[in-house]
Amino acid sequence: MPRYKLTLEYDGTGFVGWQRQNNGVAVQQVLEAAIAKLCGRLCPVMAAGRTDAGVHATGQVAHFDCERPFAADTVRDAVNFHLKPRPVAVIAAEAVGDDFHARFSAVGRAYRFRIVNRRAPLALDAHRAWWVVGPLDAEAMAAGARHLLGHHDFTSFRAGECQAKSPLKTLDRLDVVRHGDEISVIAEARSFLHHQVRNMVGTLKLVGEGKWRPDDVRIALEAKDRAAAGPTAPPQGLYLTGVRY
Amino acid sequence: MPRYKLTLEYDGTGFVGWQRQNNGVAVQQVLEAAIAKLCGRLCPVMAAGRTDAGVHATGQVAHFDCERPFAADTVRDAVNFHLKPRPVAVIAAEAVGDDFHARFSAVGRAYRFRIVNRRAPLALDAHRAWWVVGPLDAEAMAAGARHLLGHHDFTSFRAGECQAKSPLKTLDRLDVVRHGDEISVIAEARSFLHHQVRNMVGTLKLVGEGKWRPDDVRIALEAKDRAAAGPTAPPQGLYLTGVRY
Repeated sequence: MPRYKLTLEYDGTGFVGWQRQNNGVAVQQVLEAAIAKLCGRLCPVMAAGRTDAGVHATGQVAHFDCERPFAADTVRDAVNFHLKPRPVAVIAAEAVGDDFHARFSAVGRAYRFRIVNRRAPLALDAHRAWWVVGPLDAEAMAAGARHLLGHHDFTSFRAGECQAKSPLKTLDRLDVVRHGDEISVIAEARSFLHHQVRNMVGTLKLVGEGKWRPDDVRIALEAKDRAAAGPTAPPQGLYLTGVRY
Repeated sequence: MPRYKLTLEYDGTGFVGWQRQNNGVAVQQVLEAAIAKLCGRLCPVMAAGRTDAGVHATGQVAHFDCERPFAADTVRDAVNFHLKPRPVAVIAAEAVGDDFHARFSAVGRAYRFRIVNRRAPLALDAHRAWWVVGPLDAEAMAAGARHLLGHHDFTSFRAGECQAKSPLKTLDRLDVVRHGDEISVIAEARSFLHHQVRNMVGTLKLVGEGKWRPDDVRIALEAKDRAAAGPTAPPQGLYLTGVRY
């Protein structure tokens, strides 16, 4: 049975997240509804990362199986047609072998977290970035971030509801860069724990504010205790930007 | 009487434009309502550019007079407080002399027009850019744009309802640059005719598509006839990015 890989962009604002929930509309659900119109039946869709409510994607990857063979461009265009007017778009579609799995074949995931650091509220970036009023020292945040690089037990940055078997992860990249009012945190790893990026960003904000020293991030990591790290940054700043296979 | 200069950001999507209309909510109107809560009476607000419905701003400038003297930061913060939850924000406020006029003192206006040139619909940039599916040659567009630089009769790019006394304008900058899927058109002039930027962009799109040669832009300009130029690009790609004084 043909399998299709989709690269997806979505505005997470109005969704309860990737995964179906009882309390609202999920990205998975509107995508499955659009695919059902193409394939004539419900085809379950698997994603590389189950983004939370309000989290965006510019490079989410998902796959589904469908008995009927289509040209990949037809899949992209037809699913986009049926997705209207939802803010979800198929950037690319590709026929793949049935050994491809969007979640289990992934060897790298990349996220970007956008902070806008200014006094004025966000008009154009409301729901698209985290508005932080007090001045943040991005260099101190970058120094704090370096303590998290590498292979560690990330229990201190793991949500209570996380379903991963192990808290051990290898963080390959955690850059903090400022351009004018905007601070971006770029995170890359094979995989992340639930809320890991948002918990790391919420902790680095404490460093940026001067409430923590950069070295306190290492102490929080070593505590292996969620209560030792900072609060969870809000979802609207987070973008799943790409998945590697 | 103290006069205040405001630098404004807004998401133009839900507005009928800067100026009050009978058919919906205007940016001017929500700003005047917020200022009235600070000043205790209606203070008319004048803007540098009367943006159309759906057009955004990251650097609009406006001014108003208020009997009561306030610290500039108080004006910024209080107006922002009263603007909630409208997608309009005061980036900066400044006390200015009564010889300052947001519209008549302006010596330069800058716009950016965003085109996203790809097959997939826009999820995150819906209402924030012009989605153009067919491939555009940005270098050809840039070559066409160069014919519009300088002092000209811009009748061919002027809306029928334009109230300017003269169609003569001096265009100081009209750059077309591509970054990946995104093409930006950057326009700068002392002032523009009504719809001038959108009409120039709609014309340059014809060049980008290969329907026109770059030199056809010059011919359209010289015709001094609106019918000789291309269609008006849609509003959601346009941003008023700055005003010089």
